[in-house]
Amino acid sequence: MKLILTGTVTEESGLTSYIDECKTVVQEKNYDAPEASLCLPTDSELFSKVMDMVQKMKTPRLKYVFVIGIGGSNLGAKAVYDALFGYADVFHPERFPKLFFLDTVDPEFLSSLRDFMEKHIIHEDELVVAIISKSGGTTETIVNAEIVMGQLKDRFPAWEKRCVVITDLHSKLHQEAQRLGIDFLEVPKKVGGRYSVLSPVGLFPLALLGIDIAKLLAGAEEMRERCLEHTKENPAQISSTFLFHHLTMGKNIHDSFFFHPELESLGKWYRQLMGESIGKEGGGITPIVTIGSIDLHSMAQLYLGGPKDKTTEFIYSNKSAEGAIPQEALFPSLNTVSGKSISVVMSAIQEGTSTAYQKQQLPFFEIAFDEVNCFELGSYMQYKMMEIMYLAHLLKINAFDQPQVELYKIETKRILLDE
Amino acid sequence: MKLILTGTVTEESGLTSYIDECKTVVQEKNYDAPEASLCLPTDSELFSKVMDMVQKMKTPRLKYVFVIGIGGSNLGAKAVYDALFGYADVFHPERFPKLFFLDTVDPEFLSSLRDFMEKHIIHEDELVVAIISKSGGTTETIVNAEIVMGQLKDRFPAWEKRCVVITDLHSKLHQEAQRLGIDFLEVPKKVGGRYSVLSPVGLFPLALLGIDIAKLLAGAEEMRERCLEHTKENPAQISSTFLFHHLTMGKNIHDSFFFHPELESLGKWYRQLMGESIGKEGGGITPIVTIGSIDLHSMAQLYLGGPKDKTTEFIYSNKSAEGAIPQEALFPSLNTVSGKSISVVMSAIQEGTSTAYQKQQLPFFEIAFDEVNCFELGSYMQYKMMEIMYLAHLLKINAFDQPQVELYKIETKRILLDE
Repeated sequence: MKLILTGTVTEESGLTSYIDECKTVVQEKNYDAPEASLCLPTDSELFSKVMDMVQKMKTPRLKYVFVIGIGGSNLGAKAVYDALFGYADVFHPERFPKLFFLDTVDPEFLSSLRDFMEKHIIHEDELVVAIISKSGGTTETIVNAEIVMGQLKDRFPAWEKRCVVITDLHSKLHQEAQRLGIDFLEVPKKVGGRYSVLSPVGLFPLALLGIDIAKLLAGAEEMRERCLEHTKENPAQISSTFLFHHLTMGKNIHDSFFFHPELESLGKWYRQLMGESIGKEGGGITPIVTIGSIDLHSMAQLYLGGPKDKTTEFIYSNKSAEGAIPQEALFPSLNTVSGKSISVVMSAIQEGTSTAYQKQQLPFFEIAFDEVNCFELGSYMQYKMMEIMYLAHLLKINAFDQPQVELYKIETKRILLDE
Repeated sequence: MKLILTGTVTEESGLTSYIDECKTVVQEKNYDAPEASLCLPTDSELFSKVMDMVQKMKTPRLKYVFVIGIGGSNLGAKAVYDALFGYADVFHPERFPKLFFLDTVDPEFLSSLRDFMEKHIIHEDELVVAIISKSGGTTETIVNAEIVMGQLKDRFPAWEKRCVVITDLHSKLHQEAQRLGIDFLEVPKKVGGRYSVLSPVGLFPLALLGIDIAKLLAGAEEMRERCLEHTKENPAQISSTFLFHHLTMGKNIHDSFFFHPELESLGKWYRQLMGESIGKEGGGITPIVTIGSIDLHSMAQLYLGGPKDKTTEFIYSNKSAEGAIPQEALFPSLNTVSGKSISVVMSAIQEGTSTAYQKQQLPFFEIAFDEVNCFELGSYMQYKMMEIMYLAHLLKINAFDQPQVELYKIETKRILLDE
């Protein structure tokens, strides 16, 4: 992964000592620090626990993995799964195991799921259900779990052997799992949902799918070292400073503009990371996600002709699958690209876009992946988590809490009690 | 569909005469006006042409419909399809026909598609390909069409009988279709991509899928009448005035907050409508899409605790599918909602959210669907198209052009020529 920024960024001296603090957290494997998630890429004990559980659950018959979780409990795994499998999965009906995400509660969706399970899940070994909630008390997750497990219980006597609960040690959910004989993986106490993708929250479902989590962690580790260096090439330092600078100039929107449709879920993962971490005390940046070339046909007019209220990050990869446009055109009067490679055409659209941004003087930087793979995804996610920690530090806010989320939960509870 | 706004909106006298202008366009069936799309809901001739083509193409064997189009050429059909079928389609592997959208060009996606077609499409009658491009010259659409059709041509002698081209009369694509013997449906000249969902662009693929387009049009017609009335209950007048007022107060983001995950694509359709129509001359509003309850777990902190730079529109429906949370809880210490109906719990979350917004003094209005069905979707889309026309009128800008889109296209062409 390479960060490309034209022009210079004012250095923010405030970061130097914070980078050293983060370095100490890593060196001391300090899981009590707010930055505890930085210890995850090299936690071999945790890796072994995840792989042992995968070994136990991965039966030869395994066809479906359900992840029941919402927000920080599923966005990381979904980002990686969609990048590698999910986007074109509809064209691979015979590829197993498949991963399904149950996040919000939707009666129609659940009724379709029930019929599907009855028809397609014949043996309990065909399924693993991962119930993921850091606090252990997320309403939607409990409701989805009750409904799905209720159904399994009616059909399979050893249903609890096909479930894994991933939550804080000693949470109520952990206690219930113990009572029911359901397996358990721990989320380290100080690792919050939006920083938990490299904990069992993300690693267990991905590894169960056969995704190489060792490479994901290796990418994260390499990036962590790069983001702890005092050099001008430190990616997290560069982009956090860039975002800080432009936020003080009034740019209140940041656009993650992916030239890979399969990375849309990665954008949604970052949306939570940025939104929840720095959206507080009346300040913050609204993260949006744009997919090239699709959204050029819906949003380019606004971006190029509308208000200059955004910073943009273009994400693309240097290597894509091979594929050529047929030499012999069906529509010769329209086709100016016959015989060309598809990736040459798509690269031209991406470069054309950034050139247009440059000419309109819209601030942006670029992230070039070598290709979309586990290592690069691990790199990118680790980079972003550190970028956000650094940005919060520059803004002098706490990157790890989310106090206002309670506001709607309190109202919801009151309404439910009044029913 | 009902619009609910607490408090009053300052009346904008500028709208009265424009509403009358729009009414005249409808009465005179004036397809030469920029507001030509207003004539679509009651154009019985166009409806018949679409249904005749459906009749011709809908063989008993039909299993797959490919829509090749991008931006205004597919977002409308995708919005309706995903709302009614797409969201939970993965759990209905045996339901046919299925609709696939080919928008951007992705080598991996196309290679998966090629293998899929070889394996699953045995007879040409199992497939219909709709190639949709208003101008007829969209690069991605031509590339996807060349690749898919090239493959069909190699396998099926009468391949051109399974294609329909939807474009402007006499466009180059229309001419190529005539030369090749491919069927054609016309997009009325003055109906731009983002206003074209009720033209053959949206109607043909949806009707082919068995979706009741008569109801979609009836919903649109009823709404058109409501939005042409000089009353205080005119929904398009209310929300355009609301948005105008808040834009002048500096709110540069509008959030379409759907409490139905299957409506995410409807949000993306509106994103183009708003973004392209009013994002010009250095002004405009950035439309974003939020999905309840999913994004409450990633974005609520920013929305409730971050900068007050947004207007919000909550969209929900009064009637949802039935479904109950099991009476007997597996996790009794966590489950406070056992035995309750799912929709009661989800409504409480939605009401809890709007109450929290009210207490934080965040400006919003609500749209209540009777339920998610064809009639209501047609209503909503017609309402939004008129809201945007009215908003552009208040802002004194042209709602129907997109001049800056050319900026990146010019650069892309230059790069491709230099290759």
